Amino acid sequence: MSKKYVYFFGAGKAEGRADMKDLLGGKGANLAEMTNLGIPVPAGFTISTEVCTYYYQHNGQYPEGLAEQVDTALKNVEKVMNSRFGDPENPLLVSVRSGARVSMPGMMDTVLNLGLNDQTVQGLIKKTSNPRFGYDCYRRFVAMYGDVVLGMKPESEDDIDPFEAILEAKKKARGVQLDTELTADDLKELVAEYKQLILERTGQPFPEDPRDQLWGAIGAVFRSWNNERAIVYRQIHNIPDEWGTAVNVQSMVYGNMGEDSGTGVAFTRNPATGEKELYGEFLINAQGEDVVAGIRTPITISKLGELMPDVYRELQTIADKLERHYRDMQDMEFTIQQGRLWMLQTRVGKRTGLAAFRIAVDMVEEGLIDEKEALLRVEPDQLNQLLRPVFDAGEKEQAVRSGRLLTRGLNAGPGAATGRVVFNASDAVAWKEKGERVILVRIETSPEDIKGMHAAEGILTARGGMTSHAALVGRQMGKVCVVGAGEIEIDYKARQFRVGNHTIKEGDWISLDGTTGEVIEGKLQTRPSEVIQVLIEKSLKPEASKIFHVYQKMMSWADQYRRLGVRTNADQPDQARVAIAFGAEGIGLCRTEHMFFGGNRILAMREMILADTVEERKAALDKLLPMQRQDFIEIFRVMRDRPVTIRTLDPPLHEFLPHTDQEIQELAEQLGISEHKIRARLEALREFNPMLGHRGCRLGITFPEITEMQARAILEAACEVKKEGLDVKPEIMIPLVSEVRELEAQEEVVRRVAKEVFERYGFQVNYLVGTMIEIPRAAVTAARIAQAAEFFSFGTNDLTQTTFGMSRDDAGKFLPFYLEHKILPYDPFARIDFEGVGKLMEWGIQQGRQTRPKLKVGICGEHGGEPASVEFCHQLGMNYVSCSPFRVPIARLAAAQAVLKASA
Amino acid sequence: MSKKYVYFFGAGKAEGRADMKDLLGGKGANLAEMTNLGIPVPAGFTISTEVCTYYYQHNGQYPEGLAEQVDTALKNVEKVMNSRFGDPENPLLVSVRSGARVSMPGMMDTVLNLGLNDQTVQGLIKKTSNPRFGYDCYRRFVAMYGDVVLGMKPESEDDIDPFEAILEAKKKARGVQLDTELTADDLKELVAEYKQLILERTGQPFPEDPRDQLWGAIGAVFRSWNNERAIVYRQIHNIPDEWGTAVNVQSMVYGNMGEDSGTGVAFTRNPATGEKELYGEFLINAQGEDVVAGIRTPITISKLGELMPDVYRELQTIADKLERHYRDMQDMEFTIQQGRLWMLQTRVGKRTGLAAFRIAVDMVEEGLIDEKEALLRVEPDQLNQLLRPVFDAGEKEQAVRSGRLLTRGLNAGPGAATGRVVFNASDAVAWKEKGERVILVRIETSPEDIKGMHAAEGILTARGGMTSHAALVGRQMGKVCVVGAGEIEIDYKARQFRVGNHTIKEGDWISLDGTTGEVIEGKLQTRPSEVIQVLIEKSLKPEASKIFHVYQKMMSWADQYRRLGVRTNADQPDQARVAIAFGAEGIGLCRTEHMFFGGNRILAMREMILADTVEERKAALDKLLPMQRQDFIEIFRVMRDRPVTIRTLDPPLHEFLPHTDQEIQELAEQLGISEHKIRARLEALREFNPMLGHRGCRLGITFPEITEMQARAILEAACEVKKEGLDVKPEIMIPLVSEVRELEAQEEVVRRVAKEVFERYGFQVNYLVGTMIEIPRAAVTAARIAQAAEFFSFGTNDLTQTTFGMSRDDAGKFLPFYLEHKILPYDPFARIDFEGVGKLMEWGIQQGRQTRPKLKVGICGEHGGEPASVEFCHQLGMNYVSCSPFRVPIARLAAAQAVLKASA
Repeated sequence: MSKKYVYFFGAGKAEGRADMKDLLGGKGANLAEMTNLGIPVPAGFTISTEVCTYYYQHNGQYPEGLAEQVDTALKNVEKVMNSRFGDPENPLLVSVRSGARVSMPGMMDTVLNLGLNDQTVQGLIKKTSNPRFGYDCYRRFVAMYGDVVLGMKPESEDDIDPFEAILEAKKKARGVQLDTELTADDLKELVAEYKQLILERTGQPFPEDPRDQLWGAIGAVFRSWNNERAIVYRQIHNIPDEWGTAVNVQSMVYGNMGEDSGTGVAFTRNPATGEKELYGEFLINAQGEDVVAGIRTPITISKLGELMPDVYRELQTIADKLERHYRDMQDMEFTIQQGRLWMLQTRVGKRTGLAAFRIAVDMVEEGLIDEKEALLRVEPDQLNQLLRPVFDAGEKEQAVRSGRLLTRGLNAGPGAATGRVVFNASDAVAWKEKGERVILVRIETSPEDIKGMHAAEGILTARGGMTSHAALVGRQMGKVCVVGAGEIEIDYKARQFRVGNHTIKEGDWISLDGTTGEVIEGKLQTRPSEVIQVLIEKSLKPEASKIFHVYQKMMSWADQYRRLGVRTNADQPDQARVAIAFGAEGIGLCRTEHMFFGGNRILAMREMILADTVEERKAALDKLLPMQRQDFIEIFRVMRDRPVTIRTLDPPLHEFLPHTDQEIQELAEQLGISEHKIRARLEALREFNPMLGHRGCRLGITFPEITEMQARAILEAACEVKKEGLDVKPEIMIPLVSEVRELEAQEEVVRRVAKEVFERYGFQVNYLVGTMIEIPRAAVTAARIAQAAEFFSFGTNDLTQTTFGMSRDDAGKFLPFYLEHKILPYDPFARIDFEGVGKLMEWGIQQGRQTRPKLKVGICGEHGGEPASVEFCHQLGMNYVSCSPFRVPIARLAAAQAVLKASA
Repeated sequence: MSKKYVYFFGAGKAEGRADMKDLLGGKGANLAEMTNLGIPVPAGFTISTEVCTYYYQHNGQYPEGLAEQVDTALKNVEKVMNSRFGDPENPLLVSVRSGARVSMPGMMDTVLNLGLNDQTVQGLIKKTSNPRFGYDCYRRFVAMYGDVVLGMKPESEDDIDPFEAILEAKKKARGVQLDTELTADDLKELVAEYKQLILERTGQPFPEDPRDQLWGAIGAVFRSWNNERAIVYRQIHNIPDEWGTAVNVQSMVYGNMGEDSGTGVAFTRNPATGEKELYGEFLINAQGEDVVAGIRTPITISKLGELMPDVYRELQTIADKLERHYRDMQDMEFTIQQGRLWMLQTRVGKRTGLAAFRIAVDMVEEGLIDEKEALLRVEPDQLNQLLRPVFDAGEKEQAVRSGRLLTRGLNAGPGAATGRVVFNASDAVAWKEKGERVILVRIETSPEDIKGMHAAEGILTARGGMTSHAALVGRQMGKVCVVGAGEIEIDYKARQFRVGNHTIKEGDWISLDGTTGEVIEGKLQTRPSEVIQVLIEKSLKPEASKIFHVYQKMMSWADQYRRLGVRTNADQPDQARVAIAFGAEGIGLCRTEHMFFGGNRILAMREMILADTVEERKAALDKLLPMQRQDFIEIFRVMRDRPVTIRTLDPPLHEFLPHTDQEIQELAEQLGISEHKIRARLEALREFNPMLGHRGCRLGITFPEITEMQARAILEAACEVKKEGLDVKPEIMIPLVSEVRELEAQEEVVRRVAKEVFERYGFQVNYLVGTMIEIPRAAVTAARIAQAAEFFSFGTNDLTQTTFGMSRDDAGKFLPFYLEHKILPYDPFARIDFEGVGKLMEWGIQQGRQTRPKLKVGICGEHGGEPASVEFCHQLGMNYVSCSPFRVPIARLAAAQAVLKASA
């Protein structure tokens, strides 16, 4: 007996099952499963993927026994559908469709209405009493068959489809515009003309025998597995060529057989909001392709209850059954043929992030799934949709339609912001103080812009990528941020920017959708998400928000399963407060340089940089000390007993000096020194490759008095706050270490200052000294570095730059090309490069813990909030990840998923 | 019986030996060895280092039995020297000196003339019939004892030595200037005054008993092991504290007992030239300290033959004996006391590089040592002294003395050059064409300066380190080069530079000593080394040059032992020719970018960069193709059947564009485009971190037509030269790869072009495609990269920059500080950082060979010519090193040493 290749389904019994996707493809398996559930599915059969494999291995031959199995299955279909293939009176018509293990939408071929010929078309006409319908089906079938099976494509790229050409000629001859204006006779003539063309072009007549048609179509579908677009699609999606496709042969049903027929799609829940309701739309007297074509406006599904209450009830019952069966929201296709409901497809429905979260939580509460499954059902990144301010969807759509979409940049900071355009940080601050909402528009941002970024509702830059300064700081602040909008041309002098033929002046309103990267002219209404209203603004009671309930539930489950700690990157008390509201368990990276930009501070900082002697430098640092101490006091008060990792000064000193003539002149006056001196120092500090220059611990080593001041500020602040009864936990982190002796030199300064401070206060504060691992050599020599380091924090931004030898600010010239051409599978600045950077991390952790088994290890690069990277950090056995405040919930969720995936 | 602590030497028999340095210290062991050789050494004994260790472990106590052993040894000394310790008639006087395993010159204490007191001084006077001599010895002893043993130091830092103060007062009282003008009675008074001071300051009388004196001095010497300067010295030189010092007690001999006495130093060979002759100098009627003080001018040793022929003959005999015994050139100290020769010290003599090579070769030919030992006796870097042009030493000294030394920079390109100052490359070329010798003076150099550098005798820059562009290219060209001379201020507009109060104008003569970094005002005579005259200029016959003979011998032995191949970095036929003369076995790095700077080429290159479309770019590349092909043809012709590794375009494109207003204007005219366009492109190409930017294979991937042109030029050139009957071996090397898919993309272009070219020529050329490993990620993912790479070449310059996250052009701001403060043990740009960069190399090679066991691996960074790095490359199992032409012999030698050291 030959192997089983053909799987029948119909009349409540199917030979396949949902778990046979490898053999039957997704479509075939689901059709079988629905049939077995007793759901009305037009009968049919699936030819397994093994046949496809055989077909390719045997030069287009089919395995022995296939023909007999197809015959048997066809007989069963005839029996169930009560009609016969090729019967001129009561013909069975079928569709022949592909169906691979995973969906490859539109990549392979389909033939519909198969079984029609000059005889059977009469049977169809008789059954429907509709000659036009019969000939329309027939001519469509002949054209489709000619195209798909007989390969009758346009003769050149400039040509149109040959059948389309005949159709157009016919319409012209009849003086009509639309296909629907052609009569049954016109269509009948078309059939003849199509067949004539087939004879001319192929030298063979159109096959009138339905069995010939069937085998022709089966072969065509198998062959379409290897058409060019399918091959490319498989390469892109990493689908093995060996998988092959199944072929589904299924009885045709028609939604266009009159007012008692129709077709539609339905979701078991609302895919936009997640609400539990039958959601969808349908058309009366129409075929599936009419819905897709969008010529007629579909009717919302609830109307079906009024028009065909029985069908609607049946659909609801089926929807419930399918959802309970598949334990997930379903996206279903159905057709109503002369009052009878047929289900053609069901699959897990796509949904928005909001819906995903709501459905997952609801289903747990309905007992459909458990918490673990709920956690795995959502994409952590989609949490953004619960947190960000949003535009009113209708208003935005209206704006875009009316031509107000200016351009699209990179969606660096999700959310919606609307405000008046300003072009520099001090204007942003000044306007904000006057009560204006502003959008800061810059070519690119720098640390000097921090205050302006803080004052702005949103930030728009013309240059920079997803990890540019604007993007990083914007995300950390939770600002709406669109970066790298290359089409805008900013003219700072004229205080305006241009894009296309729009000119936007200072003070004009624009709106940024940081979730999509859209930049829209004019004002759009925004509102904060309910989660923010509850957690941060406290303007909404938790119990009043369904969305907050969903957020809260999901987070509590996540915390129950995750093992990674989640900290935040924050250097301002308000950021820290937000992060705690989002569940941060500490600060993983407190950058100290941002603290040097406010008011007098920048002046003292510049005085320090321009100092000629250690004494002058110390005098300037003495001015900075109380300010910086106060910063830390405030942060410690917010963080209470949570650990706070503070990084000593990192950026090169030239970042703190002014660069324009006017600023230089002003500074010279303020400090009472010559402009020449400032310029000379600027020149002396100029660097070829600032990223690889005099920064990080290299500053602290050559100017130990800077580290000394910072250590003193941190430890005095810690003592002050400890006096208030809080168990502060400062962790002092030395950046850019590549050699243990660097760390030792800086540690020595910190320990010495600590001794002095503690003696003065008369008590001690527990503190740690550790280091960033952000240079390849630090990872390579981690065993020695761990001799001095009490903790490691992977600075994966810089580690990625140095490991790849790729500057994040310059990568825009080739990285997009690399991603497009698959030279890199993804942007390593967005997701940790597991193979390269990740290998160094793995090595660093392993070597570090060899020296110091309980070494605390974390990550404070932007990757700490990216779900796949969080999972990787979990796999590496890190203690915590740290990310910007608004990504804390995402990291919590990703950390829980990492545990669940590992045990799956 | 107690352990042996005291080792006697004297009268031809010693208890110690040369190989007992650990126990007896270097001095004690050598005194014993000389004694055993029958050489006249004043008798004495050594107290072992174990006593020092015991002393420190037991709180200043001596081990049991030591006193008795010292007594016994002292008796033996008395017997041999025929005098008695403390005998008022015939007193034995001794010196007490330290002596550690390794020399710690001047770090520890010494006491001379020990044994004198009011009685014994009379015996000394009687023996010498010289009261002044006797009291002079006595007062010196008391002062030294007071200082060293009794710790009588100046009371504050501003004070002078207390004994010196008494001496000065005495001279003032006597109205004399010099010590020698004081009479015996004056000196006698001084003794009394010194003793009075000792009593006052210590509360104890000066010890009159010689045995008390002796034990006091022994303790003082042991204690001096732990004085502050000795501790610091040990830290710097990594000498363990536990080693301790020995104490040498030895009979005094005096070179100042009249005209039949004297003292001097002698070398068994000339330490400057290596010539085999007794070399040295002496003073009649003088003590060792007189030679050091430099008050009297010493007499050359050959004069001793005339003055004291017997002593001279004896000294010659001893010199021969010692050299034969120690099998190396000796540096000896001797004293003649009343016509009798005493040897006080012998040790291996320091020598110049030239001498080291000559002595090593001579000693092999004399049968004293074998070839292996000769190879290990020299420092490979010293080979420079045989190869470089040199100044006349006397003339240079004269110039420095007369204030013509302008400044000192980094000695980046050894040798001597003199010429007239020009400030830009085109002037250098123009002046050279007029027959002038020029020195190119620039703030820093860039690839545009190549032609000017080529035209210049020497290059002087104000900025940049040992691996700056100027230094790299200068070394590769074999140019004299001084870089980073920070004191000079260049004013391009005024065509002059200033340093201190000197102003040097265009056209003024200056001289550069690239071996020392000195910059000297005015003209100095130079001459090429004899090796160059033989090998390159062919202006000297090999047999006419002793230096060439030495070079040749050493190189032939090196080639016999080394296993590493040695290639060169060269991109011009003349460089390649020089490298072959120096023994290069191939080209390891042919940079192609230097080829784009000549005449029309830079224009075509700029056209290519400014192109707006692929077509325009290809048109410009088509102009470059024949020029580049011709370059390769010429290089292949020189290299014949030796492999030539050619790197595709590496630097960022902006390096090829002009930057000054005038150049931009000129270019715009030449190309018939707007200046605006050039500026816009310049701005578009501007990079924050060019080192990490759009360069290397990133260029070739985004503009594959560039790689295509280069591959075509290389392979067509190879075919052309193969037609001439040469078996060319091109190796195409893709730079800056960090991911195998980058290499695959470039390899695909090369293979496709190769196929086309070979089809057209009708034959094939064997060629390889490989990659640089110069990015940490390339080393980390080497297993995958080796799937595509037929060879690896470690680009350790960039690998060091990226592994350390340290830009070589910016490191000048902190690296010198790091080296000074021992944060890094050495400059990783000069020597491979074994621990970090080296670890990545080791990993890369191991992983690469796991994929492809026969993977060819080399190094083409500047480290390839640094001896310690060459040894490291040997240890890693590399196939070859590649370095600039003038370092090829050094690498050959270092490679041989690596083998010999490994088997030692």
